[in-house]
Amino acid sequence: MTRHEMIWSANLATRAERMRASEIRELLKLLDQPDIISFAGGIPEPSLFPFDVARRVTAGILADPNLGPQALQYSVSEGYLPLRQWIAAHMGRLGVACTPDNILITNGSQQGLDFLGKLLLSPGDTMLVEAPTYLGALQAFNAYEPRYDRLMPEGGNRTPASYASAALAAGGRVKAAYVVPDFANPTGETMSLAGRESLLDLAEDLGIAVIEDTAYEALRYEGESLPPLLALDVARCGDIDRTRTVYCGTFSKTVAPAYRVGWVCAAKEIVAKLVLAKQAADLHSSTINQMVMHGIAVAAYDAQVTAARALYRGRRDALLAALEREMPEGVSWTKPEGGLFVWATLPERFDGAALLARSIAEERVAFVPGSAFFATDAHLNTLRLNFSSPNEEKIAEGIKRLGRLIRRM
Amino acid sequence: MTRHEMIWSANLATRAERMRASEIRELLKLLDQPDIISFAGGIPEPSLFPFDVARRVTAGILADPNLGPQALQYSVSEGYLPLRQWIAAHMGRLGVACTPDNILITNGSQQGLDFLGKLLLSPGDTMLVEAPTYLGALQAFNAYEPRYDRLMPEGGNRTPASYASAALAAGGRVKAAYVVPDFANPTGETMSLAGRESLLDLAEDLGIAVIEDTAYEALRYEGESLPPLLALDVARCGDIDRTRTVYCGTFSKTVAPAYRVGWVCAAKEIVAKLVLAKQAADLHSSTINQMVMHGIAVAAYDAQVTAARALYRGRRDALLAALEREMPEGVSWTKPEGGLFVWATLPERFDGAALLARSIAEERVAFVPGSAFFATDAHLNTLRLNFSSPNEEKIAEGIKRLGRLIRRM
Repeated sequence: MTRHEMIWSANLATRAERMRASEIRELLKLLDQPDIISFAGGIPEPSLFPFDVARRVTAGILADPNLGPQALQYSVSEGYLPLRQWIAAHMGRLGVACTPDNILITNGSQQGLDFLGKLLLSPGDTMLVEAPTYLGALQAFNAYEPRYDRLMPEGGNRTPASYASAALAAGGRVKAAYVVPDFANPTGETMSLAGRESLLDLAEDLGIAVIEDTAYEALRYEGESLPPLLALDVARCGDIDRTRTVYCGTFSKTVAPAYRVGWVCAAKEIVAKLVLAKQAADLHSSTINQMVMHGIAVAAYDAQVTAARALYRGRRDALLAALEREMPEGVSWTKPEGGLFVWATLPERFDGAALLARSIAEERVAFVPGSAFFATDAHLNTLRLNFSSPNEEKIAEGIKRLGRLIRRM
Repeated sequence: MTRHEMIWSANLATRAERMRASEIRELLKLLDQPDIISFAGGIPEPSLFPFDVARRVTAGILADPNLGPQALQYSVSEGYLPLRQWIAAHMGRLGVACTPDNILITNGSQQGLDFLGKLLLSPGDTMLVEAPTYLGALQAFNAYEPRYDRLMPEGGNRTPASYASAALAAGGRVKAAYVVPDFANPTGETMSLAGRESLLDLAEDLGIAVIEDTAYEALRYEGESLPPLLALDVARCGDIDRTRTVYCGTFSKTVAPAYRVGWVCAAKEIVAKLVLAKQAADLHSSTINQMVMHGIAVAAYDAQVTAARALYRGRRDALLAALEREMPEGVSWTKPEGGLFVWATLPERFDGAALLARSIAEERVAFVPGSAFFATDAHLNTLRLNFSSPNEEKIAEGIKRLGRLIRRM
């Protein structure tokens, strides 16, 4: 047996492979090339970051004789209480009456997804997901070897019994449904109120959890806000502590991603379990980052959201106008009311991955081929276009180049 | 089926229960009571934290037009390159020639343990651990349902075949051995050079990974440093990329825990797999914290270590002297050359948990009952005494009180 044939090493390789997906890493590499116009990332515009508030808040904490030592010390796994209080009040404004005991601080919303996979999924269990859906959620869940089944828009032609029996036939049970209800990654689409209610009906029939990923919720550029699934669930149950919905929120898109501060809001009993997963995984989120995020939230959350909405609304408008101008017949795309992405569908004969290769080589334009976002049955003729990173001028130029490439293919 | 009997909810509860262990949380609660003298924590002395350097470095980064936007943005899963370069050089000084490709940044060393459990363990697989061992490692691994078998000091009476056949009989395979070679939590003991070599022999015979947790390595107060297991493994293999040892390091005990910056150093191939686990779990560690930690390491790592050694050496000496003075016949304890803990063994009739209850009620003194640190076959008549948190005066007073309680029991 050579070193490279060792069981543990093979094991490591197989499991890691399940989690492979290259979105963010590959994207950051592309963005390093200054002549590329990139619609690939999902990253915020850095000019929106609150540098001055961050500097002032951090310096104040580190210089304070009480807060300083606390900021650099170990802390509790559930998270910094004043931040959990701020978030509980924020959830109240979204229609979710709750207390800090309903909140766990996580490293971005991503870590909440990992914990839910860890606690809910056994190999062969079924996770219901939209198609397409957020790649990072698939990565997080994949580690726990689920089977995926497709949530149909507003129920489609699927019955609860058809989901349950398909799961049993595959050797497991349906454990949860995962959705990004507002301005989804990658489609930019928003679930209707009827769609939300019908998902909660389905979850109740199946006796499963609902995982609600709200990464983009605050970034609405037009139209009326819809209540989060958790708010609708609270309205049904009368009390958050009787709900089945697990809300995964984040400051990554409204304040800054690098602090890695997100949260889970759910029934106290569920949060208590997730706290144990947090403790086992990394003890707690960075204390100083939680304290700084609390300071920024108190001082500037609303201003951050207002500024982000104004900037991204302009870029979304620029992207939609450019697509209208530049795309040939047979190409269609979503018109998102918020978020960071537009989803384009090309004629059947196109393959997004092949198009990307040519687009980089011939036009110096990048995007993410849509196939990456499907758990099963990928539609190859799709692309995800991000509009938060490129400015309006680059958006116009990039879509012009992409349009002319598609026209000559 | 009522809401609380739902499959997914039961599932959540069972799995979370596996990860339950209350050390840090309960301890922090005790420490909140100012009249308690606590030997319970494992937390650093906050007066050692580098407040001024941290403030200066953070302000410099946030004000820099290039570094600022990078510091608050998403970044790559493997970690901030200058920090990985600094760590690679640091590892070189410990006898491990390596490159940044051998380094992954994790949220403290704890997260490295979680990823290794995730990638290596299937339910029923065997993890070899010392008895007693670090509670947090058991929590991290427990999520993946291993069986534990006991590593005997310097091999003891166990053969590789006896480990392998016991694992097979239990329905799995031996996948790894986990050790804290220097000033272990909870015993304060250090593996001899012969013990290290014999562990590597065992790992080679069994074809397993070695997980080396070096949380306390830098905190040596007397005696000669011993090479890390990874350095010995590199010496055997001629090249880090052929080794089986995974070194889990951290800045938590030398700089400050709250940044949650640790690292894994291992063969490139292993690190590449762990990077995928990192991406799936939380995308990446806090960018700004990695940049700040790099700045602090460059400016003040050696000074931090020197100051920590001087302070903790005095507290260790105070604890050992107080035990000598106050403990009755029949109580024994370890004499650690470094780290944060002394391990005491009482006469057989004592139960550490019962003693703790009386100790808090009657003497206002806290510690951790030793039983918490055993994966199997706990020795109930043991305690872990931390000497990094209480000052020398409190150590003398606390041990005096504990001694008189033991004498009257």
